[in-house]
Amino acid sequence: MNPIRVGLDVGGTKIEALAVGPDDAILARTRIPTGWGDDAVVTAVHDAVDALAAAGGFPVADVASVGIGIPGLVDAAGGRVLHAVNLGVTELDLADAVQERLPVPVAVENDVKAAALGAGSLRGDAHSMAYLNLGTGVAAGIVIDGALWRGARGTAGEIGHLSVDPRGRVCGCGQRGCIETFCGGGAVSRAWGRGGELPILDIFDLAEQGDAFARELREGIAYGACSAVRSLVLSADVETVVIGGGVTALGDRLLGDILRRLRQEGAESPFIGSMRLDERIELLPAGSPAAALGAALVGAQRLPAGLL
Amino acid sequence: MNPIRVGLDVGGTKIEALAVGPDDAILARTRIPTGWGDDAVVTAVHDAVDALAAAGGFPVADVASVGIGIPGLVDAAGGRVLHAVNLGVTELDLADAVQERLPVPVAVENDVKAAALGAGSLRGDAHSMAYLNLGTGVAAGIVIDGALWRGARGTAGEIGHLSVDPRGRVCGCGQRGCIETFCGGGAVSRAWGRGGELPILDIFDLAEQGDAFARELREGIAYGACSAVRSLVLSADVETVVIGGGVTALGDRLLGDILRRLRQEGAESPFIGSMRLDERIELLPAGSPAAALGAALVGAQRLPAGLL
Repeated sequence: MNPIRVGLDVGGTKIEALAVGPDDAILARTRIPTGWGDDAVVTAVHDAVDALAAAGGFPVADVASVGIGIPGLVDAAGGRVLHAVNLGVTELDLADAVQERLPVPVAVENDVKAAALGAGSLRGDAHSMAYLNLGTGVAAGIVIDGALWRGARGTAGEIGHLSVDPRGRVCGCGQRGCIETFCGGGAVSRAWGRGGELPILDIFDLAEQGDAFARELREGIAYGACSAVRSLVLSADVETVVIGGGVTALGDRLLGDILRRLRQEGAESPFIGSMRLDERIELLPAGSPAAALGAALVGAQRLPAGLL
Repeated sequence: MNPIRVGLDVGGTKIEALAVGPDDAILARTRIPTGWGDDAVVTAVHDAVDALAAAGGFPVADVASVGIGIPGLVDAAGGRVLHAVNLGVTELDLADAVQERLPVPVAVENDVKAAALGAGSLRGDAHSMAYLNLGTGVAAGIVIDGALWRGARGTAGEIGHLSVDPRGRVCGCGQRGCIETFCGGGAVSRAWGRGGELPILDIFDLAEQGDAFARELREGIAYGACSAVRSLVLSADVETVVIGGGVTALGDRLLGDILRRLRQEGAESPFIGSMRLDERIELLPAGSPAAALGAALVGAQRLPAGLL
């Protein structure tokens, strides 16, 4: 037998699947559509494992462990998903349900936390870092000495709902001016209100063409991202903040905005300047397998030591 | 010999000194004026040890270790003070200088970090907590599993300079709307601008009498303190935030304002409400020896294990 660790990043529309071989090499990657609701999500997880085995040319019997990253509130110890609104899941014993047909260790983790572990592993330095996810929502996962840092009640890194403007837009959470209202893809698209397939891309393009509202929103995205970086460094003092998530599809245009703002803030405040925040951020490369890899690592933690 | 651990909280006007006996009991406490400048600070440290020995009725020869909490930038590993503007100290090898006349282990720590350790020890639970100091400035120390959590570069807990209002007052650090501009005693007194011996007390009193500016500043103090608590819990997720520092001399009037605001924020945001922030804060009692006790603990960490 050839023990393979599977990692699945379950999103609102697709599952990214990845297989890690015994020598820690990535054996295969694939992507399938997600299901909606409890049963469909469990079925999609099995389909993803099957598709991955087919893509990698290995039998499903070689799968030693499965780790699942999933958006929402997760009880990692119990393998349970408590709220994953984008998947139509309210409360699901996901690990147990998957194990009914696949009797190997199965672990479940919040997708951003899993991606944080994966990003640390890909960097080769997970001593002190945060993974800041600018997706539909905004949240971060903190990794200290290679392990997830959950905090006292599991909310460490929930900086998306720190309010940084008392007169800002109302957030879905009920507060005003949360970081997420500035740089969360969902909130910014709603504020934009002009529809379109890729509203954040439209905002960047139209800002360059002089559209005042687009410019305001684009500046807000950089303000929100910088606020998130400052919060993570001034509170938890992580060495590095790796930024990923759907909004980072904008790549260097987004990174440029964030770096310009961090440098401007550093020039205006010697204190902030001394933090050298611009040297401490990185963008996760497009197509990075961080989230699925992190899920595989979470699953592998359930294996007996000899199989790691 | 009767090994005694001394802790000194060196402030801008006074040194609070405390002696801990072999059975961890507080043997003596005293207070003397601080000096200004390198030599005067070193002399005042020795004077404080002498005064403490006199107060406690023990010979200085029984002092086994000295810990010094001091405001400003501290290189704890090197026992050096790098910037303590309120004491006229720019760069001082404080531990070495004190040891010239008192040849015992001497440790130096930032005063807020030392107070965090002391507050944790006094609570009897330092598993996961922050000590939020609302003094002239605003900063926090984070204690995890009984030890200071410094972060990657020693700035963990520096939440005073998180901006929470892009249109707020300019902070001494150069940013706008820092938490410290809302609830730091120095910044609020400057904004008030009417002088007086106890401007924060005046602000609280006049706010109750209907003064509009006093009311705005008083509401700002609660806003700043609540922002600090939210930042500490949503970033580092400490279980408890203990609030101390000069501004807390207002006692229940301040605590009442903070609790009212936290509950209002929790009512407006189910997410924030679920954090139960109002149940996770405590005010350090007036006259608490937390800062000097924490300094004693920092000093004792330099002792050989048998003498702890």
